[in-house]
Amino acid sequence: MKIGLDIMGGDFAPKATVLGAIEAYKALSEGQQLVLIGDKEQAVSILQENNVSPDHFEFVHTTEVIGMGEHPTKAIVQKPDSSISVGFKLLKEGSIAAFSSAGNSGAMLVGALFSVKAIPGVLRPAMTTIIPKLKGGLGILIDVGANADCKPEFLVQFGVLGSLFAQHVYNVQNPRVALMNIGEEEEKGNILSQATYPLMKESNLINFTGNVEGRDMFGDLADVIVCDGFTGNIILKLAESFYVVTLKKGLKDEFFDRFNYEQYGGSPILGVNAPVVVGHGISSPEAIKNMVLLSKNMVESALVDKIKLAFQ
Amino acid sequence: MKIGLDIMGGDFAPKATVLGAIEAYKALSEGQQLVLIGDKEQAVSILQENNVSPDHFEFVHTTEVIGMGEHPTKAIVQKPDSSISVGFKLLKEGSIAAFSSAGNSGAMLVGALFSVKAIPGVLRPAMTTIIPKLKGGLGILIDVGANADCKPEFLVQFGVLGSLFAQHVYNVQNPRVALMNIGEEEEKGNILSQATYPLMKESNLINFTGNVEGRDMFGDLADVIVCDGFTGNIILKLAESFYVVTLKKGLKDEFFDRFNYEQYGGSPILGVNAPVVVGHGISSPEAIKNMVLLSKNMVESALVDKIKLAFQ
Repeated sequence: MKIGLDIMGGDFAPKATVLGAIEAYKALSEGQQLVLIGDKEQAVSILQENNVSPDHFEFVHTTEVIGMGEHPTKAIVQKPDSSISVGFKLLKEGSIAAFSSAGNSGAMLVGALFSVKAIPGVLRPAMTTIIPKLKGGLGILIDVGANADCKPEFLVQFGVLGSLFAQHVYNVQNPRVALMNIGEEEEKGNILSQATYPLMKESNLINFTGNVEGRDMFGDLADVIVCDGFTGNIILKLAESFYVVTLKKGLKDEFFDRFNYEQYGGSPILGVNAPVVVGHGISSPEAIKNMVLLSKNMVESALVDKIKLAFQ
Repeated sequence: MKIGLDIMGGDFAPKATVLGAIEAYKALSEGQQLVLIGDKEQAVSILQENNVSPDHFEFVHTTEVIGMGEHPTKAIVQKPDSSISVGFKLLKEGSIAAFSSAGNSGAMLVGALFSVKAIPGVLRPAMTTIIPKLKGGLGILIDVGANADCKPEFLVQFGVLGSLFAQHVYNVQNPRVALMNIGEEEEKGNILSQATYPLMKESNLINFTGNVEGRDMFGDLADVIVCDGFTGNIILKLAESFYVVTLKKGLKDEFFDRFNYEQYGGSPILGVNAPVVVGHGISSPEAIKNMVLLSKNMVESALVDKIKLAFQ
């Protein structure tokens, strides 16, 4: 299995990404090969500084980098030799089985949609994040920003995508899927959530358990919480800001520790024809390692095939 | 000045409300009279248990109570002698200058819209909440649940309402008004926020400073943060849940203390023709006291007149 990593992506690339690749390498099994996509010379130099043989890795040299602030669609088109563009080319060809990057997340999304494309039947691929539960364990929030405006059918599909991800990658049996809303009762909410509820209730692809509210985010009412990408992105960033506050305040607690994005590695883009993971811009080597391992888990669990089957 | 309080509203009513009324009474000046609306016999009994003379208060006896779970519109119509219905009748007549309740918030909203009604020019009255800032001080989030679905013009008006509230009740000079969004740039967001941004930029009734994101909620980029009521309600409840977690974990910190809703008393409904404040269902006597004092501050600052003037 070849696992692709964009070593130019993220605020601390290529140093943090190459150091992360070293850690990921140590965790991989035989037959699992990391493909480092980016400036080979820089990568080799960082490896040598750390007394790690470049022979442990494959390299695909690229000459361009898509910056964090660049317009995703334009950048993908105008920088064909960027690490992100090349990564998706390799992914589409099947030269790598998964691709991950802590770079421009919009470019990652556009790249995924343009190259490996949405799985037939999936109306809108979506991005997920992990939400720690107070009692232990974790939940999944989907979508966290890929789709700012959604139709009810999109949200139902997010439930299916999140459910399959929870089941096959995090081994949650029969995941409980809930709709993020502003009241518990079926008739509560905005037009979107009111229209979505009955569709989710009817779907036999998910174990729908009803509405949850903002206050239920860290409880144990659901394993997968579905919302539009506007709401999900605000929730994600608000939750992150709480974590940052607890860090700043020096508050130590096991629950808050589990907010640390480094442990989860990144947000998968679910519903495209190959495993794609987008890391946090500020990814440390630890985060990069876990991003790579998450993309590997997605390959091993054959998540994409499971999704294809569900949407047949 | 007569200040109306629903003593039947809230999970711990009438005990918590009457005890809160006693505390509020102590904080009022001469000429400021509390009008307790609800079961007079119960109220007098609680006052006597606490060695407080009933003479310090006016009473308007009512025989019905709207429960927390009741359908707002039906309850208002079917229970004309409920404390909420009577409170709004008194407010509409001008027998009281402000009305507050920790009861059914939907019924409070419907009651306000049916009785004192929206100020001419205000498309949709909205509810606000206080958001503590990390550096000290506070910000205002509007709308937190009155309007689940919004048009761009509503959001612009929420900015005006929040701005006037911040200025006249919390003495924030030239409040900075921002739009809650999922990116900093003007073109970012969902259809609603993309359409709202240019309207807010053009408005000469607010000091618009651009988009903020979920991570900026506790920062100092803005004094008033505007969003639709669906998003705002989720943010509010998520933030509350963080506060509850810090309490459960026994974490002591001045910043988290300032999340305590008890200090703020409640959420005003802005844009109606009289001061109306809705308290948290779990309001303690301290919260009730501060809810009453907030409604008094709204009267003293002539906020409703200021809003009328802005929307002329």
